[in-house]
Amino acid sequence: MNRRKFFRNGSLAALGTTLISPLELSAGTGSFDVLSKGKKAKNIIFMVSDGMSSGTLNMADLLKNRKLGQGTHWMQLYKDNRVARALMDTASASSIVTDSAAGSSSWGGGVRVPNGALNMSASGEKYLPILQKFKRAGKKVGCVTTVPITHATPAGFCVNQASRGEQSEIAEQYLELGFDVMMGGGHKYFSADRRKDKKDMYASFQEKGWHVARTRNEMLAASGKPLLGVFGDDALPFSIDRENDAELQKNTPTLAEMAQKAIDQMKNHPKGFVMQIEGGKVDWGAHANDVAALLYDQIAFDDAIKVAIDFAEKDKETLVIITTDHGNANPGIIYGTSANENFDRIQRYTKTNEWILNAITPQSSTTQIRELIAATNGTTISDDDAKEIISYYQDLNKKSEDGLYNYKKLPFKAFAEMQKKTNSVGWISMEHSGDYVECCAFGPGAELLKPFVKNTDLHYLMLQAAEVENKF
Amino acid sequence: MNRRKFFRNGSLAALGTTLISPLELSAGTGSFDVLSKGKKAKNIIFMVSDGMSSGTLNMADLLKNRKLGQGTHWMQLYKDNRVARALMDTASASSIVTDSAAGSSSWGGGVRVPNGALNMSASGEKYLPILQKFKRAGKKVGCVTTVPITHATPAGFCVNQASRGEQSEIAEQYLELGFDVMMGGGHKYFSADRRKDKKDMYASFQEKGWHVARTRNEMLAASGKPLLGVFGDDALPFSIDRENDAELQKNTPTLAEMAQKAIDQMKNHPKGFVMQIEGGKVDWGAHANDVAALLYDQIAFDDAIKVAIDFAEKDKETLVIITTDHGNANPGIIYGTSANENFDRIQRYTKTNEWILNAITPQSSTTQIRELIAATNGTTISDDDAKEIISYYQDLNKKSEDGLYNYKKLPFKAFAEMQKKTNSVGWISMEHSGDYVECCAFGPGAELLKPFVKNTDLHYLMLQAAEVENKF
Repeated sequence: MNRRKFFRNGSLAALGTTLISPLELSAGTGSFDVLSKGKKAKNIIFMVSDGMSSGTLNMADLLKNRKLGQGTHWMQLYKDNRVARALMDTASASSIVTDSAAGSSSWGGGVRVPNGALNMSASGEKYLPILQKFKRAGKKVGCVTTVPITHATPAGFCVNQASRGEQSEIAEQYLELGFDVMMGGGHKYFSADRRKDKKDMYASFQEKGWHVARTRNEMLAASGKPLLGVFGDDALPFSIDRENDAELQKNTPTLAEMAQKAIDQMKNHPKGFVMQIEGGKVDWGAHANDVAALLYDQIAFDDAIKVAIDFAEKDKETLVIITTDHGNANPGIIYGTSANENFDRIQRYTKTNEWILNAITPQSSTTQIRELIAATNGTTISDDDAKEIISYYQDLNKKSEDGLYNYKKLPFKAFAEMQKKTNSVGWISMEHSGDYVECCAFGPGAELLKPFVKNTDLHYLMLQAAEVENKF
Repeated sequence: MNRRKFFRNGSLAALGTTLISPLELSAGTGSFDVLSKGKKAKNIIFMVSDGMSSGTLNMADLLKNRKLGQGTHWMQLYKDNRVARALMDTASASSIVTDSAAGSSSWGGGVRVPNGALNMSASGEKYLPILQKFKRAGKKVGCVTTVPITHATPAGFCVNQASRGEQSEIAEQYLELGFDVMMGGGHKYFSADRRKDKKDMYASFQEKGWHVARTRNEMLAASGKPLLGVFGDDALPFSIDRENDAELQKNTPTLAEMAQKAIDQMKNHPKGFVMQIEGGKVDWGAHANDVAALLYDQIAFDDAIKVAIDFAEKDKETLVIITTDHGNANPGIIYGTSANENFDRIQRYTKTNEWILNAITPQSSTTQIRELIAATNGTTISDDDAKEIISYYQDLNKKSEDGLYNYKKLPFKAFAEMQKKTNSVGWISMEHSGDYVECCAFGPGAELLKPFVKNTDLHYLMLQAAEVENKF
């Protein structure tokens, strides 16, 4: 922290923060946020669009712009020159292509761990997670996500675990930690009915003084006490499916609503707060090559960016970091004479491919399949393609797809290939990619972000920005 | 140019350029190049890695780092915090996915034109190309590339043409322009033997006082006069094929050598110079899903970056812009337990897929094909895959691939899919993508680069940085 000390003590401090003209700021000098330089970040909001390739960022901005006449809040921050930017190397200890557990652990523990592990090395060494550090430093801490709250990305900020799969155990670890806000999906890891050990984690949290919210309204009504929100058996629904379903809207909050609630719960704490906000299903959409799932969840994440930046703007003591843990599937719009018309078709999609493929049964006729797709995509597939789709349902042993979150082995890849003909969006795979990814920072401490960082660098950047000494 | 005037005239000018501490510079503040702020760019070097997706930048850096222990010069500029960075929106007038003609025209003429056109609108309106502007302003100007010098990207800085395909005519336009250095491939557009109209363009250039170089040595020996270098019938060979062929090495310069020569030819001009350096075959490698072609040409482009930056560092009056015109194929390393081992296999590739597929004949046996691939890839394909490959050669009418530069309809896509099993690199298509792309700037004028730009913005940035009034 030499630089900061230098500015604090030296006579240049005042000059450094006041002698930049407004014209300078607007000229794209990279002097994005000079007015907060050298100030301490009392609060930190760390935002993760999980599994966001470069093309996801681009297509969400284009979709929003072409549909609503205004691009994403994320890109607006760039246009207004209000953030520091970096490319981030996302590798894990075991691979040039990380998984989400190792990815979040790199930020969470400051050390690269093998894929699958949470803040634990191959030999079992543990690294204290960042939210435990900040809790010990007196801050309020929490996580909100659209996937189970026990999932890899929030867990990487909270716990040590050899295997990310131990989500029931992670729920128990959360109980011990005494954090302040934990919200997302994951009923099956909290409910006595759903857990193998039949423990009622909700009751345990309540006994420890937590407010437990199981619906959007219960969440909105909460105040004061620590807040556990669990809104889905596993993950929350994809944004576009939620938007087109009144029941889901009633029961499930958006990521922006959870973010706002978490901020409101913690913002008045004298020592500040640190939280993670994860758009977790962006990754699931990419794994499924499900373009409407992917892009509308990226836009939902973008709405949460607005919540965070609006707060940070007024607060002036909040560092907001916005990034992703890794690319996924590297989707992109493919060149062709109909590229615009095809890409604009996505505006007419009203359901995810997940919803559509789950609505098909072995008894569905090709006509019914084509009508279903026409009704939910605004355009349909050929009769031959419908035959191809139905063949996956008729004998799963003979023909089926795998995929990380494809529990029912539905033909996501085959359907995405068919949609490509009319939406011009292509995918390299259904898996994470090794691309360097986008990262940016807003507010006090943003000036610490170098243009090229390793994922682990962000752990130390957060501590340094908050002026919390790394001795635990 | 208000900002500049403000700094020139105001009392803050001195403060703005001297009161930043060295510690500030190293802390990643985005104040990358403050010492040159407000200085005029006498020279501009505009560098284009054509068709470079985010993953191409990433994989070239990883390949170089894992093979040689040091990443790319491009990423080193970021690590050292020496450049301003932007995301660039690459759309054309006709599409969200540009072609190279419209892409280069956006920078060249400052106006978006339809795909296929060079600085000409759909209704025929012409926009004066940037090198003609700078020539009129008294500077020396030129282009070097690894594709025909008459190809879309150099042409977009030089001429007005309704169709990029008119390369023979573009060669004639170059003759009229009186530029200073033009080097690349394209013999078939200059040679009397190869041109339909049988004009000897070489003789015409010589009559006008140009030195004409047809080999690397002839290029190296040139001095004084304007320099036309044409080193291949069409494009120059891919870098990895050149590196493994003594004859090609003798006759063909590298992009870095052409860049160095062009700088040497123009650097002593009192009014400075402006040039474009294009790694044109990065795009061709992506179109062919040819990973060794792509990555080693990206590394060759990176070597040219070193030439440009080394010059600019000493010169202190040179703005270097480094970018791409659009993504292409969005390649990336795919997650998996063998991702590292697989990606490292590319280090053993000694030939492009282009070279390999051209070495196969309808008479090749599957054993011969497997041996050929083992000898040039360090690993081979299955017998079934070899049968699949040979099927493309036995009846081109029955089974063949298209592709922009795939004149012989060879099975590039099929072979890349086979290689994916052992190198873990995937592709979304064989075409350009609509992704926002990486852009950075070094030297005086770099501070004008905003974090999010349209491709057309760079036209005006160049004029402003050089303080050339846009009145022609």
